[in-house]
Amino acid sequence: MLNTVNIHKLKEECGVVGVYSNSFKSKVSKMIYYGLIALQHRGQESAGIATNDGELAHFHKGMGLVSEVFDDSIFQKLQGHIGIGHVRYSTTGESYIANAQPLVVKYRKGSIGLAHNGNLTNAALLRERLEDDGVVFQTTIDSEVIVNLIARYSGEGLSYAIERTMDLIKGAYAIVVMTEDQLIGVRDSYGLRPLCVGKLEDEYVIASESCALDVMGAKFIKDVEPGEMVIINKEGVNYKKVEKGVKKASCIFEYIYFARPDSIIDGVSIYHARKNAGAILAKEHPVEADMVIAVPDTSIPAAIGYAETLGIPFGEGFIKNRYIGRTFIQPEQSMREMAVLLKLNPMRNAVEGKRIVMIDDSIVRGTTSRQIVSSLKRAGAKEVHVRISSPPVAHSCYYGIDTPDRNQLIGAVKTVDEICNVIGADSLGYISLRGLKDSVGIADDPFCHACFCGNYPIEVPNEVRNKGFNRSGGDI
Amino acid sequence: MLNTVNIHKLKEECGVVGVYSNSFKSKVSKMIYYGLIALQHRGQESAGIATNDGELAHFHKGMGLVSEVFDDSIFQKLQGHIGIGHVRYSTTGESYIANAQPLVVKYRKGSIGLAHNGNLTNAALLRERLEDDGVVFQTTIDSEVIVNLIARYSGEGLSYAIERTMDLIKGAYAIVVMTEDQLIGVRDSYGLRPLCVGKLEDEYVIASESCALDVMGAKFIKDVEPGEMVIINKEGVNYKKVEKGVKKASCIFEYIYFARPDSIIDGVSIYHARKNAGAILAKEHPVEADMVIAVPDTSIPAAIGYAETLGIPFGEGFIKNRYIGRTFIQPEQSMREMAVLLKLNPMRNAVEGKRIVMIDDSIVRGTTSRQIVSSLKRAGAKEVHVRISSPPVAHSCYYGIDTPDRNQLIGAVKTVDEICNVIGADSLGYISLRGLKDSVGIADDPFCHACFCGNYPIEVPNEVRNKGFNRSGGDI
Amino acid sequence: MLNTVNIHKLKEECGVVGVYSNSFKSKVSKMIYYGLIALQHRGQESAGIATNDGELAHFHKGMGLVSEVFDDSIFQKLQGHIGIGHVRYSTTGESYIANAQPLVVKYRKGSIGLAHNGNLTNAALLRERLEDDGVVFQTTIDSEVIVNLIARYSGEGLSYAIERTMDLIKGAYAIVVMTEDQLIGVRDSYGLRPLCVGKLEDEYVIASESCALDVMGAKFIKDVEPGEMVIINKEGVNYKKVEKGVKKASCIFEYIYFARPDSIIDGVSIYHARKNAGAILAKEHPVEADMVIAVPDTSIPAAIGYAETLGIPFGEGFIKNRYIGRTFIQPEQSMREMAVLLKLNPMRNAVEGKRIVMIDDSIVRGTTSRQIVSSLKRAGAKEVHVRISSPPVAHSCYYGIDTPDRNQLIGAVKTVDEICNVIGADSLGYISLRGLKDSVGIADDPFCHACFCGNYPIEVPNEVRNKGFNRSGGDI
Amino acid sequence: MLNTVNIHKLKEECGVVGVYSNSFKSKVSKMIYYGLIALQHRGQESAGIATNDGELAHFHKGMGLVSEVFDDSIFQKLQGHIGIGHVRYSTTGESYIANAQPLVVKYRKGSIGLAHNGNLTNAALLRERLEDDGVVFQTTIDSEVIVNLIARYSGEGLSYAIERTMDLIKGAYAIVVMTEDQLIGVRDSYGLRPLCVGKLEDEYVIASESCALDVMGAKFIKDVEPGEMVIINKEGVNYKKVEKGVKKASCIFEYIYFARPDSIIDGVSIYHARKNAGAILAKEHPVEADMVIAVPDTSIPAAIGYAETLGIPFGEGFIKNRYIGRTFIQPEQSMREMAVLLKLNPMRNAVEGKRIVMIDDSIVRGTTSRQIVSSLKRAGAKEVHVRISSPPVAHSCYYGIDTPDRNQLIGAVKTVDEICNVIGADSLGYISLRGLKDSVGIADDPFCHACFCGNYPIEVPNEVRNKGFNRSGGDI
Repeated sequence: MLNTVNIHKLKEECGVVGVYSNSFKSKVSKMIYYGLIALQHRGQESAGIATNDGELAHFHKGMGLVSEVFDDSIFQKLQGHIGIGHVRYSTTGESYIANAQPLVVKYRKGSIGLAHNGNLTNAALLRERLEDDGVVFQTTIDSEVIVNLIARYSGEGLSYAIERTMDLIKGAYAIVVMTEDQLIGVRDSYGLRPLCVGKLEDEYVIASESCALDVMGAKFIKDVEPGEMVIINKEGVNYKKVEKGVKKASCIFEYIYFARPDSIIDGVSIYHARKNAGAILAKEHPVEADMVIAVPDTSIPAAIGYAETLGIPFGEGFIKNRYIGRTFIQPEQSMREMAVLLKLNPMRNAVEGKRIVMIDDSIVRGTTSRQIVSSLKRAGAKEVHVRISSPPVAHSCYYGIDTPDRNQLIGAVKTVDEICNVIGADSLGYISLRGLKDSVGIADDPFCHACFCGNYPIEVPNEVRNKGFNRSGGDI
Repeated sequence: MLNTVNIHKLKEECGVVGVYSNSFKSKVSKMIYYGLIALQHRGQESAGIATNDGELAHFHKGMGLVSEVFDDSIFQKLQGHIGIGHVRYSTTGESYIANAQPLVVKYRKGSIGLAHNGNLTNAALLRERLEDDGVVFQTTIDSEVIVNLIARYSGEGLSYAIERTMDLIKGAYAIVVMTEDQLIGVRDSYGLRPLCVGKLEDEYVIASESCALDVMGAKFIKDVEPGEMVIINKEGVNYKKVEKGVKKASCIFEYIYFARPDSIIDGVSIYHARKNAGAILAKEHPVEADMVIAVPDTSIPAAIGYAETLGIPFGEGFIKNRYIGRTFIQPEQSMREMAVLLKLNPMRNAVEGKRIVMIDDSIVRGTTSRQIVSSLKRAGAKEVHVRISSPPVAHSCYYGIDTPDRNQLIGAVKTVDEICNVIGADSLGYISLRGLKDSVGIADDPFCHACFCGNYPIEVPNEVRNKGFNRSGGDI
Repeated sequence: MLNTVNIHKLKEECGVVGVYSNSFKSKVSKMIYYGLIALQHRGQESAGIATNDGELAHFHKGMGLVSEVFDDSIFQKLQGHIGIGHVRYSTTGESYIANAQPLVVKYRKGSIGLAHNGNLTNAALLRERLEDDGVVFQTTIDSEVIVNLIARYSGEGLSYAIERTMDLIKGAYAIVVMTEDQLIGVRDSYGLRPLCVGKLEDEYVIASESCALDVMGAKFIKDVEPGEMVIINKEGVNYKKVEKGVKKASCIFEYIYFARPDSIIDGVSIYHARKNAGAILAKEHPVEADMVIAVPDTSIPAAIGYAETLGIPFGEGFIKNRYIGRTFIQPEQSMREMAVLLKLNPMRNAVEGKRIVMIDDSIVRGTTSRQIVSSLKRAGAKEVHVRISSPPVAHSCYYGIDTPDRNQLIGAVKTVDEICNVIGADSLGYISLRGLKDSVGIADDPFCHACFCGNYPIEVPNEVRNKGFNRSGGDI
Repeated sequence: MLNTVNIHKLKEECGVVGVYSNSFKSKVSKMIYYGLIALQHRGQESAGIATNDGELAHFHKGMGLVSEVFDDSIFQKLQGHIGIGHVRYSTTGESYIANAQPLVVKYRKGSIGLAHNGNLTNAALLRERLEDDGVVFQTTIDSEVIVNLIARYSGEGLSYAIERTMDLIKGAYAIVVMTEDQLIGVRDSYGLRPLCVGKLEDEYVIASESCALDVMGAKFIKDVEPGEMVIINKEGVNYKKVEKGVKKASCIFEYIYFARPDSIIDGVSIYHARKNAGAILAKEHPVEADMVIAVPDTSIPAAIGYAETLGIPFGEGFIKNRYIGRTFIQPEQSMREMAVLLKLNPMRNAVEGKRIVMIDDSIVRGTTSRQIVSSLKRAGAKEVHVRISSPPVAHSCYYGIDTPDRNQLIGAVKTVDEICNVIGADSLGYISLRGLKDSVGIADDPFCHACFCGNYPIEVPNEVRNKGFNRSGGDI
């Protein structure tokens, strides 16, 4: 990955985009391209675009960044007035083109393209049932289960089929579906993964985050609500709510780390939520210090909020090397201590002799934090006080975020004092869950915070718990 | 393609290999690799290998030659004691990785890998029926239809399922199928596409042609008979004949052009069949001449046979440039006449002032023949007598060979005299169909020669006739 | 380039590294690799490493980022106890591998490797003289002139030859030279380009900036002084000053924009200089506002300085997309307005309704500034006050920085008021030259600020002025 | 290499092409491209083209086949009315782009491009002298020595400079030189390497072999004579003989193996020379047999000649796999016996039970011959009589052919009987040197046959003898 200093961060699974146009046919794939570039932070492993020209579906998928996967000659082929796109997150291990999305299939009524962000908790069960019914699977992704269900129920129309499918699938999903003549977006009943709708003069756009609307020049219309389906076709846009009587539980980690700060999700500015979190953290865990710094880039708003609240100067404490590519050769053991410096070099002159507050968004395993704190100390920082703008991550996610096994989550196996000791900080403070919720500023707690508290809004079958995040590949 | 002088030749669809080992697990994928290299003449577009280690299936496919698609790191992953491989032919137009084989799927009983050579005539119909049943398709290849049928009937065991599938599918096929514990090969009831079985100490091998057995060091056991299934597992090898009461009709073009001359198919040496054809051609169309030459490489045995029969010296008349790659830049219009010289330069000193008999295996459109004859004349040949070791190709093939539309087949639209005139030859003689059959030397004519005579052993539905050879791609 | 939003910024020419080791031979090339990654901001076009194992020189060069050019197999070949490395800047036009550095040649005494940052003003003249003497040139880079001169004077030893060469060459240079047994670094008499020396236990290191020492784990020893030569061999390190009686005139733009903020050049922290510049700018051009933002990344320290001085909150105003690769497809004309948003999206929620001070390091052509200001306005900023932490760039550089022709420098052809108008800002203020000098905090003005004031410390021949920056390529 | 079965053959160093046009400027580089494709058998390691548009020289070089190195976008840049091209042979070991040709340099009068086939025997000496004079070298190829000499003597015009250079350089060379306004070709005084001139309507062409003229549509004019210089400019073509009073000694191996059979060198058809050699071999070493086969492809004419002379049928004995690419994965030790079969499979049906005469052009180490004979035996050949159409290679070549050290030449260390034993043949016969000379049919023996007899026409300094063929690389 480009962003190797975040190697121990939690990983988002994907980002999706859909565009429906009433004209300018040739631009749909380009719009999706720019939308995917804006969503690239949600996944760097693979990228794909599928279009439909009213008769045929066309698609292209590849491993790597959006800008690496597509070139001008490919856009020649991606004709159509409807299209969808997908970026997939970057694992450190194996990854396979077979699992890239969108998935495009031919079914009795024509073709369906589908792109999915999230993770189903009952995928294995549904898969088994379909297999018992004679279905064969060519990938290991949930999308293939979903598309098979939709095809099965397509007798009475696509939106009915999707509704039936939504009845069956459990877990987190934000999905865009494309046929010859319509574009449909759906979000699971808990609203775990974000999805919003925008509009240009002649196009409707669906995207995981509003920052994708911005680069397409689209005006934000609304967030797709939990359990809502948005149907776009030549008659315009239609919304349909599939009530399941469940309480909204959207992923609070979007506000902490996943989403881009210029996005607005469910009415809340990510930037403001992060800055608020910093201010609340300052109140919960104040400290006397000379400078507040952020571990770039996610934590900058929180650091500014923390600094402003306590009247401590905010400063740049690190230089992040933006040129470390994916094929970067790791230093040998004896040079290992320089690895973190290559990616994130402390600004000796800025931190030397100072009492530093270092703001980070989360601690997963603790390894990276330890290295960063140690590099600050070596650069002459007198004190390093670590403040984390999320509570300790103590539980695995089963809704689309790639978390390590619980026993590797330092927040699950150690106390805050122990963690402070492990990472070598002079003090350590996590924001409280209460404080985190307040930072987002929505009164009735419509969030999933299972990774902090362990209360999973959607039941997680044991076999999923044991197996963890589905990460399989070109092996089937 | 590497072999651009053959650009107007008929194209074979594919080659398949399967290996079952009782030991030496790690070598199976390498054996398939070498087998595929030996079968590379059957297809240069894409190559793939799939293996099964008893629990998981692994696969790798890519565009290009076998030697380009695989490297050492890939073989690390292709573990297993069973494996299959596939080469796909090179089209001049679009081609898609999505259509590369083997196809590997997960079904209720585990995983199936399948590789197919041939073309089904009722694929569209079967596909429609499956779609009506809710099945979705991710590719446009027949293999996906076949594998869905097998999965559907898998309740009573794999060999039963394949038998049922064979009952349903019509057309030409030589298939290898792999599961966790067995390797199965089947050949259609007419035996249109070749398939044979060989054995090493600890391995059984199935392959399209015996030349693949040779390079693997395997001993030839037998050709798979039309309508026969060969089942290889830990109990050894078993054969099962699915009688359909039809007369064998194996593709006679294998003997003329497709197969490698060192292969033996259904008991007949390709080399000898070709040499015989030359001898018969000499008797049917003798001519006084100074030298017999071949259009390299396929026609050399026929040219030798022709030369020996009439006592005319055989000589090399052309130099074929072996270094013209796939990315070769075509000469501009004004340099067009040099294109054929680049690929096939006549040996001026050998042909100058001589009466030449030029043996070729077939004439498809006539364009290449005209250019070659003309180049011989410019090089000083006094006379050029063209002799073709197959009858005029006058009908399209629907069983897996990529023939142009009938109206582009010069043999369908012109008389021999007219063709002679078009290609600028001093005389032109085609072997008779009778003579061709005699050249193979099997008494009761167990051949399909529909491309010459128009009598199709398997009914060809009108929609297939109109659509021609299925060549669709990354559009669905 | 990765950093396409800076497309209209001035471009640094290069970065150099050299390592001499008394042991651990195999690590020298790896150390250079990490050093070059730390210097990657100085050039992204090509990268190269050359080593000498005491007998033979080995080298590898390639187009692209350091991490793209090298892999493990290459390091196997780059053996040696001495080595040098080079990164070259990224032009938008043609670029040629032939011009990549280090340049490695064989001369009468063995081999020389040389890497050069800077630009000679009398290269053409010296080249002509050498050509008159029968020398042939294979590239268009100054390094080839320099290496020829060194070879010519090598009769009395390498350091003597370099001294003689320094007598002849005029212009800006920071050079590292490698032979079988020594590593030499030199800096021109004006000290236009930076160069410093560091030390590990068994290695000496020379590098363009101290941030490269940090990642190698080397301790900073000293900056190479203007006109100084540092000679490293088995006897240790030696310094030799070549006096030319000229006043130091190091490039002040290193402090403004080129160098990495964690580097210390000639005793001054880049970070502090930038923050100071912001503070001075605040005093020179204060404004009432609600938030101070930076155009990322270079301007952040200046923005913090500006904000602190006036007591206005500092905030993040933009999100910079880090994933826009070099092969990024430019939007069509009708989508052009979205191009800048793709790279730099304003944070609507942060800026909406606010009076914004936007700090940037320089304005070259004005085009990018106009787009950025306009995007802020569209995002709802009530006022946009632009403050620039350098004076107007009004003169071309001939010492190694790629500046456009004077008539394209907006600072050369328009007044500040006119520029303010062009870029659509509510007010515009540049730091004064006096203020800029003060920001670096060295009393006696040892700087070249010709790009602001037009006083060139080294005479620039007319043919160089007319020709502009030497950018030639694979044409000779 | 593509042609891996020839891995133990002697290797030609290079092929050269030059084109001078009076019009059709844009086609010169394309003509060279096609010429190089026709000469690709002379070298597959690297390819390059340089052109001059009257003002600037342009060039492009790369590793790999001609068709891999060039694409349409490159030809856009290779403008000019004069151009030269080069192919370099494929080593099994290291190879470097730095050593690719043509070499293009800037000297006092403009630019020179030079491409060289051959090997100088006094290159090291000349290099030393030039180095003593201050010259630096960037490659290890002889061309750089030659171009430096030409530049040095260029005061009185290019053709004078080349003449002076020819006085100094010793060894084998066929060179094409290009400036802004002329194209010059020279051949060493012994005529060791071939070079010929051809003409189209508006273009003159110089090439290593006449087969390159054919594909460009050029008419053969004449062979460049030993010691002759051909000068082509706007005044037309001029020839100038530099007499050195030495006897012609052109490389007889061109007739045996290197040249393409459709070429005519120094008035002799390669095809006829080879066929004659076969006939003479038949007389010198007749044998009773059932079939004569050739090791493809070079030996086919000799095999036809042998067969005709003795009245034994000629047949195809092997199938050569044309699809084994350069990246082909070698079989593991236990599968090693299959390696030769992959490349060259004996035609079991053709050879089984027969007494075979196998014609090959040479035996270098004997390893390949042994494997091939053994594969024939395993395929059932009753007897294998090996006949070689050249005498035993017993001495190394120092004039541009890559021969192994003498002690690895089986012809140098073993008797014919011993060799017969080593390779497992039933009998072995080499053509006599007398017979070989007669096969070419030129009366007064104007040949170098030092590799057979050890009489070197040009003195070989001891250091060259000890060092062997110059094969150095990106190490200098």
